[in-house]
Amino acid sequence: MSSILDAPPIAAEEKPPWKTLSKHIKTGDGDAALELLREVPPSELLYVLGRLRDKKLTALWQLLIPIDLEFAADLLQLLPDVLAANLIEQLPTETAATLLSRVDSDEQVDFLATMDSERSAEVIEAMGSSEAADIKRYLSYPHDTAGGLMVSEILTFSAKTSVSSVVDFFRKHHDQFDEYVTRYLFAVDEHDRFVGVVKSRTLLTASPSDTMAQLAVSDFSVVSPDVSVDELESLFDGVDHMAVPVVADDGTLLGAVKRSAVFEVLQERDVASLMRFGGIVGGEELRTMPLRVRTFRRLMFLLPSIGLSYIAVSVITIYEPIIEKATVLAVFLPMVANLCGAAGNQAVAVSIRELTLGLIDGRDLLRVWGQEFFLALFNGVAIASVLAAVVFCTRGDTGGLPLVIGAAYTLSSVVAVGLGSGLPLLMNRLGIDPAMLSSPVLTTLTDMTSFFLVLSLAAAILDFT
Amino acid sequence: MSSILDAPPIAAEEKPPWKTLSKHIKTGDGDAALELLREVPPSELLYVLGRLRDKKLTALWQLLIPIDLEFAADLLQLLPDVLAANLIEQLPTETAATLLSRVDSDEQVDFLATMDSERSAEVIEAMGSSEAADIKRYLSYPHDTAGGLMVSEILTFSAKTSVSSVVDFFRKHHDQFDEYVTRYLFAVDEHDRFVGVVKSRTLLTASPSDTMAQLAVSDFSVVSPDVSVDELESLFDGVDHMAVPVVADDGTLLGAVKRSAVFEVLQERDVASLMRFGGIVGGEELRTMPLRVRTFRRLMFLLPSIGLSYIAVSVITIYEPIIEKATVLAVFLPMVANLCGAAGNQAVAVSIRELTLGLIDGRDLLRVWGQEFFLALFNGVAIASVLAAVVFCTRGDTGGLPLVIGAAYTLSSVVAVGLGSGLPLLMNRLGIDPAMLSSPVLTTLTDMTSFFLVLSLAAAILDFT
Repeated sequence: MSSILDAPPIAAEEKPPWKTLSKHIKTGDGDAALELLREVPPSELLYVLGRLRDKKLTALWQLLIPIDLEFAADLLQLLPDVLAANLIEQLPTETAATLLSRVDSDEQVDFLATMDSERSAEVIEAMGSSEAADIKRYLSYPHDTAGGLMVSEILTFSAKTSVSSVVDFFRKHHDQFDEYVTRYLFAVDEHDRFVGVVKSRTLLTASPSDTMAQLAVSDFSVVSPDVSVDELESLFDGVDHMAVPVVADDGTLLGAVKRSAVFEVLQERDVASLMRFGGIVGGEELRTMPLRVRTFRRLMFLLPSIGLSYIAVSVITIYEPIIEKATVLAVFLPMVANLCGAAGNQAVAVSIRELTLGLIDGRDLLRVWGQEFFLALFNGVAIASVLAAVVFCTRGDTGGLPLVIGAAYTLSSVVAVGLGSGLPLLMNRLGIDPAMLSSPVLTTLTDMTSFFLVLSLAAAILDFT
Repeated sequence: MSSILDAPPIAAEEKPPWKTLSKHIKTGDGDAALELLREVPPSELLYVLGRLRDKKLTALWQLLIPIDLEFAADLLQLLPDVLAANLIEQLPTETAATLLSRVDSDEQVDFLATMDSERSAEVIEAMGSSEAADIKRYLSYPHDTAGGLMVSEILTFSAKTSVSSVVDFFRKHHDQFDEYVTRYLFAVDEHDRFVGVVKSRTLLTASPSDTMAQLAVSDFSVVSPDVSVDELESLFDGVDHMAVPVVADDGTLLGAVKRSAVFEVLQERDVASLMRFGGIVGGEELRTMPLRVRTFRRLMFLLPSIGLSYIAVSVITIYEPIIEKATVLAVFLPMVANLCGAAGNQAVAVSIRELTLGLIDGRDLLRVWGQEFFLALFNGVAIASVLAAVVFCTRGDTGGLPLVIGAAYTLSSVVAVGLGSGLPLLMNRLGIDPAMLSSPVLTTLTDMTSFFLVLSLAAAILDFT
């Protein structure tokens, strides 16, 4: 009985394990590297591997594969998809194919889909022809559909098979199915068409002569390979199944989607949103990735921001004569704009969350605005009062400046909340990922609004005498 | 065999289901409401329920509970925790207790932990005493530990039980365990102390006289109730188990943590980060929540932002005489600040992601800076060149303005990337959630840096003649 509590913490005084590991890789001592990795607590493994540069990481796997292929494959599945894909790309094609054949079918597909498409085609060709055909079929489905998420590690039997034959099969192939969906057995006819699902627990209490067809549950949900991950999520929300069979239009059983796979892909999607919110375009960035890829991805987000930002500040250009008369406006312009942007972003976050949960969709603009208006107005007045007080305390009542700033903030924050709550719905309606565009576009629009309102109200109200 | 593909789409011409549902609730027609909800496709259920106001939602459950308690409990588990908790709070205590007893143990705990603590104590008291004791024990563990995540729906047998008795048990209690962890059976001694795990599949091939103790897997991982969700994640990454037993210090078997529960809680955490990134303090906000709660939470984030924003713009105050001489600076100040903020945010996103994955931790500041410096410098020069060109094209070379803006952007963006990549590591070291503080604090710091650099370089270089 092993417990993760027994794993010794890494003592600060000792030489850090990645240094030792790095030395083993340099000297080509695979056995020592393997032994070291086996001793690292699971929670520290990724940290240790993360210290190795690209080439060292590839070299490590080249040492591990000939010694313990199973371990090398398990370790590979610990890595984030982008790192694993990068590593496989750099291995010799034959070695990569050998390694990949030991990886679970759903991870195989994830890694290959993340790889450079030319390299992935080469690696697939180098694999066994039946496995290659399976993988090609899986890769033909989009990542976030039942076809892309399904695994082939399922237990399939002919509908005519008897319980005693199934038990015999288990006795012979004892302990080979740790990675399989074993809660259910799947019954198919002579043309591999799906017949039904047998809960493996019912085998225990069934008579040995019963057939799979007799034991099959009649009302088990099935999905077609093009069902989306959102539909799968709501399916799993509604039923207690741990997996559902994926069946082609002609009735062929293709595989099964596990409940956990659906939740993992939803989690990945949330992470991707977070990255896009932070301004990383083109997927996940890890710092071990090549510098030019990272530079390019970040630049692709910043370059359009120049244009957007210029559009916003061009509002200021129009009012430069006003600023010449009251340079104090240059101080409060960015402040009003920042606070309006923050208020708008709050509304964006709530709209994205409610869209993700399925509580609202693109049709609900007016309802959402109804729910936001009084909140926006109340918070607008509250913050505006504080702002006006700050202006009054630091500048006095210079020609009505507190009034100008307070009124401009109230109005522009209400507009910002309206834009922030509404834009994600509009994006959703247009089929664009709301997390992708709302934030930079929103900032531009809220900046423009607050610049315009502060400066036009200043032009109208401010007493320059 | 039912397929979610068969579910009819909601036709746009028909009266929307929530209107009909709302009418049934008003007239108190529970049967019609139940029938309607049974016909709504699972993927639309949450959307339909989301259209009902707080009180309508509570009224709906009061109608459903006496007619079909099981359905009411299943439907409750579809709702986000905050909505479900709110609903339970509003039900009469006895009704709430009846409803909750039908909910899975892990969801029970989630809902009760989200509720007002006084109401939740009342509801627990109204439940059966043994169930209440279980729940109190579960609630005593933090949400994101093995104790908080474990379920009690596991199959536990005495280590001396024979296979034939277990099979008899299954025969008698046929189909009662859909929500149970059934892949494993757990063997305990006469004092409920954990003895071992029996894979249910081995029952099929075992002899009827074998005991649970004989079939138990010897090297199965166990965890103590205070193990964190991160440790659980890396444990599940390393082994193929679908669940691990949770064992107290005295050896008592408390329950089991399912793999899926760990991934669901990690997903929730990502969502919470996204919300905090968007400026919602105090947890998830849904628009069906009371207005005053929503207003208060958003305000709590905006109020400190006034202070932070004021600190940033006070840099401008110092340089007001410079702006008086060149009001054009008021135009480019917000632009440089926005772009630096965006560059800094990119680095924040990558640091948070790498921290979450366990690729880096608080100790790695210098390494991360090493990985960011050249990227920051390159992108800084690239964006600065475009900015300088924009200045030159719109304003000409007025006294060296393009040089001032370009140089100021380059320097302040490098500082912004340094702050953005470093702050999350610092927060991590101090034990603060990085997503909580990095964004507003970062904006203040990057604003200050860029305001200072633009204005001080302008004072030094700009030729005002």
